[in-house]
Amino acid sequence: MSQAASIQKLLAELERLPGIGPKSAQRILYWLLNNEPSDTQRLAAALVEVSETVHFCERCFNYAEDELCPLCASAETGHRKATQICVVSEPRDIVAIERTNEFHGVYHVLGGAISPIDGIGPEELNVRQLLERLADETIEEVVLATNPNVEGETTAVYLARLIKPLGITTTRLASGLPVGGDLEFADEVTLGRAIESRHEI
Amino acid sequence: MSQAASIQKLLAELERLPGIGPKSAQRILYWLLNNEPSDTQRLAAALVEVSETVHFCERCFNYAEDELCPLCASAETGHRKATQICVVSEPRDIVAIERTNEFHGVYHVLGGAISPIDGIGPEELNVRQLLERLADETIEEVVLATNPNVEGETTAVYLARLIKPLGITTTRLASGLPVGGDLEFADEVTLGRAIESRHEI
Repeated sequence: MSQAASIQKLLAELERLPGIGPKSAQRILYWLLNNEPSDTQRLAAALVEVSETVHFCERCFNYAEDELCPLCASAETGHRKATQICVVSEPRDIVAIERTNEFHGVYHVLGGAISPIDGIGPEELNVRQLLERLADETIEEVVLATNPNVEGETTAVYLARLIKPLGITTTRLASGLPVGGDLEFADEVTLGRAIESRHEI
Repeated sequence: MSQAASIQKLLAELERLPGIGPKSAQRILYWLLNNEPSDTQRLAAALVEVSETVHFCERCFNYAEDELCPLCASAETGHRKATQICVVSEPRDIVAIERTNEFHGVYHVLGGAISPIDGIGPEELNVRQLLERLADETIEEVVLATNPNVEGETTAVYLARLIKPLGITTTRLASGLPVGGDLEFADEVTLGRAIESRHEI
């Protein structure tokens, strides 16, 4: 017990964070103690604010502070195409897609992917709500942007089977070689997919 | 602006922490958002508590919640030897020494080390307070445990010159090969010091 109780408590809380081991937690702790107390309190206030104000968007299940997330809200004001829905597993996927600046429609967060082994079926995901949106809103295209792994592919195939009969264009993100990558280092599955999906230039 | 304002604010605060880049900050953020809000609030409360209650120990300048740090307090109650003072640069050095379980005296934190290049002289450190302790308390030994680098050595030599004339045993941590290390990978200075300080077995 060489350290004050409140220091030990904070250290324990920091060590719980993902990717933060005992050494990193100690480094952060001493950094905070060396800084102004107001700095530490600003971090604490930001944590409290997020924990109190952030919930799921009523429409797309992205994180939101108001009823609608910033993206659904800008679709309401006509700044984004409300006719294209990009379906993702998690809110963090939206951030990744937004960074590309290639998609200007709206999103729908499933909250996971179908994984029978983990007991996650379509009922555990926001699938019903997606189908309700497709019935209510005028949607022209659904982009299935679940991860290119077993669970994500399964989910995409499952959703495509439900959505295509509605007469809505259903697309899937392309798989292939990462841009800037080396052909010799690509795994067989990715390279095989790239050959399969080759296109004329 | 694909994310709510409070999320962006927390992300910015997390990115300021040492060793936390944008990716780690995002990972922590989504982990917090996936957890119970009460978990996030507990972290926030721990931060506030530390920022409000932790200050320097009146005697040794370790971090403390009360007037005295836990170590000085246990010296008061006779659970640690008050006759040995270990002088360190930073409070975190106390944690490292305590982990060894080899020292059972009390500490004195200088708050840095002499470094003319950074404009840090003895006046910027808690040297005067150390000398006052040596005058007031019955001290038999001072262990100089500043870092084994230029600044730490300079500080140790400076302090030894002040303390030795007071008739107090003044010692310095040994330098040599790290236990469990490989001789061939030791740097010349460390290996040289190990040869210089060789002892009969």
